[in-house]
Amino acid sequence: MKIGIVGTGHTKFGKSEQNIEELMLEATNQALLSAKTDIEKIDVIYVANLSSSFSHQCHLPAVLASALRVNKEIIRVESACASGGLAIKEAAIAIASGLYKTALVVGVEKMTETPIDETTAILASAASQTEIRHGATFPSLFALMAQRHFYKYHTTEKDLAQIALKNHHNAFLNPLAHFHKEVTVDDVLKSRVIASPLKLLDCSAISDGAAAVVMCSEETAPYFKSEPIYLIGIGHNTDFIGIYDREDLTQIPSVKKAAQKAYLMSGKFPKDIDVAELHDCFTIAELIEMEDLGFCDKGKAAEMIAKGETQLVGKLPINPSGGLKAKGHPIGATGVSQVVEIVKQLQGTCGKRQAKKADIGLTCNVGGSGATAIVNILSR
Amino acid sequence: MKIGIVGTGHTKFGKSEQNIEELMLEATNQALLSAKTDIEKIDVIYVANLSSSFSHQCHLPAVLASALRVNKEIIRVESACASGGLAIKEAAIAIASGLYKTALVVGVEKMTETPIDETTAILASAASQTEIRHGATFPSLFALMAQRHFYKYHTTEKDLAQIALKNHHNAFLNPLAHFHKEVTVDDVLKSRVIASPLKLLDCSAISDGAAAVVMCSEETAPYFKSEPIYLIGIGHNTDFIGIYDREDLTQIPSVKKAAQKAYLMSGKFPKDIDVAELHDCFTIAELIEMEDLGFCDKGKAAEMIAKGETQLVGKLPINPSGGLKAKGHPIGATGVSQVVEIVKQLQGTCGKRQAKKADIGLTCNVGGSGATAIVNILSR
Repeated sequence: MKIGIVGTGHTKFGKSEQNIEELMLEATNQALLSAKTDIEKIDVIYVANLSSSFSHQCHLPAVLASALRVNKEIIRVESACASGGLAIKEAAIAIASGLYKTALVVGVEKMTETPIDETTAILASAASQTEIRHGATFPSLFALMAQRHFYKYHTTEKDLAQIALKNHHNAFLNPLAHFHKEVTVDDVLKSRVIASPLKLLDCSAISDGAAAVVMCSEETAPYFKSEPIYLIGIGHNTDFIGIYDREDLTQIPSVKKAAQKAYLMSGKFPKDIDVAELHDCFTIAELIEMEDLGFCDKGKAAEMIAKGETQLVGKLPINPSGGLKAKGHPIGATGVSQVVEIVKQLQGTCGKRQAKKADIGLTCNVGGSGATAIVNILSR
Repeated sequence: MKIGIVGTGHTKFGKSEQNIEELMLEATNQALLSAKTDIEKIDVIYVANLSSSFSHQCHLPAVLASALRVNKEIIRVESACASGGLAIKEAAIAIASGLYKTALVVGVEKMTETPIDETTAILASAASQTEIRHGATFPSLFALMAQRHFYKYHTTEKDLAQIALKNHHNAFLNPLAHFHKEVTVDDVLKSRVIASPLKLLDCSAISDGAAAVVMCSEETAPYFKSEPIYLIGIGHNTDFIGIYDREDLTQIPSVKKAAQKAYLMSGKFPKDIDVAELHDCFTIAELIEMEDLGFCDKGKAAEMIAKGETQLVGKLPINPSGGLKAKGHPIGATGVSQVVEIVKQLQGTCGKRQAKKADIGLTCNVGGSGATAIVNILSR
């Protein structure tokens, strides 16, 4: 399978004055413009969004039809924080079926207008009923993973802080990022404890935003006047919802399984990846994903970080966009935003945050505490 | 395109003691059993569900993975009340891509535990923000359509009451229906006014329930030991969300467009349809859909009803299951339930509610006030 990506759009992430409709429209119009096409050329549209509870609006496909003033086939997909990656995958399958030549994917979330206690409840509803009943929230679930990783592999709070530092540095170079503030290891270590060992600066924030891509069949790609990037491998896996079902809390089995499928489909190996966007909802998530994606052996991510290999100037820049941590995490948009960043890295248009070598890129989008994972591999 | 349907499952609709997980599991296990297969043979799973607000549970794909104790690719899709039909369509596309040979589709909604004012707010959120702001709910939006149809085509409250009578009669013969109570035209006319001219017995109710189907590629179908029915045409359209955008309130343009696509793909015409399940969220919806699906000319549905043509013994039985009106309308389950009924009609296993001739069947699943429509055409 080889699916063209011929256009990208991305709003600024952060607290926005725009409503959900306006966010979708801005990202879509940018994507169509960059693909040098118009909405009439799009055969099918996929929308990714976590929850109608944020905007008190379900039936988002019809909201988008109204915003775009078109009648099309529009589908909303959801699998918690992996909804964006899932929409990319479903659009790729639709094109692979031969029934559609072109697709638009829009990921969106409008979060900042919801009171914080409601936001906490909405987000927690992506965990298992058992975890919810015990008062567990995502920071506490990822904190358990971190504690176990610390115990088993001697990973430290400083290792995690390095991830925050790197991602804030990268976001500083990304005009569309939520945060433009460099942080030091000391800043992270001294920030407020959220769920030990995770501190405020280990956590991603609440953001508004939308991202969009225009996709097409391999045969159709040359007809677009933009430089196509190709999606060459997709892996998706859904695991049990509760982390109490995991044999080993230092691993996210869905990420491993999704990665294996994506590597198999693309014929690529971890060593072939030049640049990657990982799902750093918490710093520990980026570290565990590095291992489960095969970028290093289990327990060795901290070494890779210490050597600076995942920095922009390293041999495998991770989260050049700033990641969920510092670019922001408007949930439905995140998986699409990751693909937008990798497409731009592969096109060499990322300016100050451009990776030196960018022929093959990877995105890893995770839902909940890791039950869902979607891995995409892209190539020039 | 020709996609096999080789298994069906359906819980009793109504007020259930089961939670959302148990409902999904019961329908799934029945579907697997009727397909004489097991979950390991399923390549991909689609889940249809309107809103995480009912069950305070999003990330439903992972909930289902836990319930089934499997790690698979699981996708939730949503487009308001058309989510079930949409899941069937997306599963068909996945199989058509050649990437998957088999798919399970589960539609579910657990509604009866939510307080009625919350339910009203959740359902209203599938309308446009403008309509919500003006206090419009779905009964009032469909009432506007009815008023206009009455004015333009001299349709009457009695014509609508005949639809309620028929669907309650059919549901009386369906052991899985929510309501087992025959009603007379007089009962309907004397029931409480909800939004004039719609009365209580013109409206579908709040139900719990799940429905499931096992689907497979045409080549794979003979390997199942059950009698396959084939999905031969699919049409989907998303229109603007607000009915104020419609030129004529007596039509649902999305239904027309979806039907045209499904007829084109299947090579069938309205006259070829032997039995149909329509989206009678309100009696007026069944009447308008009859016209927009081409079963009769615009404005002539009342005549067709008066002649008894849509009754079980008529030439085109509509909603033999009892429809949303009397079988029940657990939203995410509805579109899947419609396909389950048509599959069983085509297999000739519907007992007392069996249509005399059932070679070609049609389902029409509608979202919101008609912005989304999915039409499926099935054949033996």
